[in-house]
Amino acid sequence: MTGPIHELIELFARFPGIGRRSATRLVFHLLDMNPEFAARLGESLLSFHQRIVRCGVCANMSDSDPCGICTDRGRDKTTICVVENVPDLWAVDAGGTYRGRFHVLHGLLSPLDGIGPDDLHLEQLLERVAAGGVAEVIVATRPSVEGEATALLIRRTLEKTAVKVSRIASGVPHGSELEYADARTLERAFADRRELP
Amino acid sequence: MTGPIHELIELFARFPGIGRRSATRLVFHLLDMNPEFAARLGESLLSFHQRIVRCGVCANMSDSDPCGICTDRGRDKTTICVVENVPDLWAVDAGGTYRGRFHVLHGLLSPLDGIGPDDLHLEQLLERVAAGGVAEVIVATRPSVEGEATALLIRRTLEKTAVKVSRIASGVPHGSELEYADARTLERAFADRRELP
Repeated sequence: MTGPIHELIELFARFPGIGRRSATRLVFHLLDMNPEFAARLGESLLSFHQRIVRCGVCANMSDSDPCGICTDRGRDKTTICVVENVPDLWAVDAGGTYRGRFHVLHGLLSPLDGIGPDDLHLEQLLERVAAGGVAEVIVATRPSVEGEATALLIRRTLEKTAVKVSRIASGVPHGSELEYADARTLERAFADRRELP
Repeated sequence: MTGPIHELIELFARFPGIGRRSATRLVFHLLDMNPEFAARLGESLLSFHQRIVRCGVCANMSDSDPCGICTDRGRDKTTICVVENVPDLWAVDAGGTYRGRFHVLHGLLSPLDGIGPDDLHLEQLLERVAAGGVAEVIVATRPSVEGEATALLIRRTLEKTAVKVSRIASGVPHGSELEYADARTLERAFADRRELP
């Protein structure tokens, strides 16, 4: 099978979570839509990578360097939240609890995948902290072997500085049932228990 | 929120079945992929509508007029299968049972949606039949009020010609359990029962 319809289906089907069936539905939907939409989507994709830059301060990906978060005067400059990747930054930011700055690692320590300490841009984090004005670094990597190893590495990297290094809590998620929590989650929830006032 | 990442998320989220969450995942996946892929997808979309034409014979959508199916010499020219839309044509064709030609209505009779007899290009179908050489028209519209009404309209449109007009069977689908079949499906399955030899 050839032609523009098949070509587009093949391309859409390369995205994770989009099978051939979904890709076919998307393309036929596109065929029924205003041609302007396909053109806008096409233009947006064509220039996408050129319009995205990595922030020289926090390594966030956006259309400006430094990024909008680093230049946002409304944010608390005394805290840096360290995240694995940009989607995690978005998730923490959308949560609304944290209103400080970020540092994006673009990965986690994972010797099996060939990701060592030098691949996580920790010198940049150390420089930011050494420059002064930062009171706390909150490590918000995921609670996994790699996430914990990365958190320990960050604490070690920053131990010569006076900064406080903390780790987000791991435990039973809000609204879920203990019945469905795995043993490791329960272990963490008990280990990190806090005294009620 | 602005910028190229949000812009692309908004565009992807306009597709049916892709929510904001899936759109965000797609865009971040794109960010990690080879920029060449986004460029190829962009180019394919940009020229998509210009490269698609409607077949002047059967109203199929492809990159040529007449379409590849109408010019395929290996197909039986004596039967025309009438389908609601191009995805249905693809489904029937992929099934492999039917190897004749098609006629695409691009809709079904639906007075409530303002789709009347004049919107279904039936003159074109009548012309094809009147031109001779067609022995049977198989109406493969879906088994619904609109699909049945359309089938009756097609039979009426063609009744001045000598062509045989048939309708695909409706009944309990292969591999499914009767327990889950709805009353209307069972009704059709009993009404269309055939005598075993």
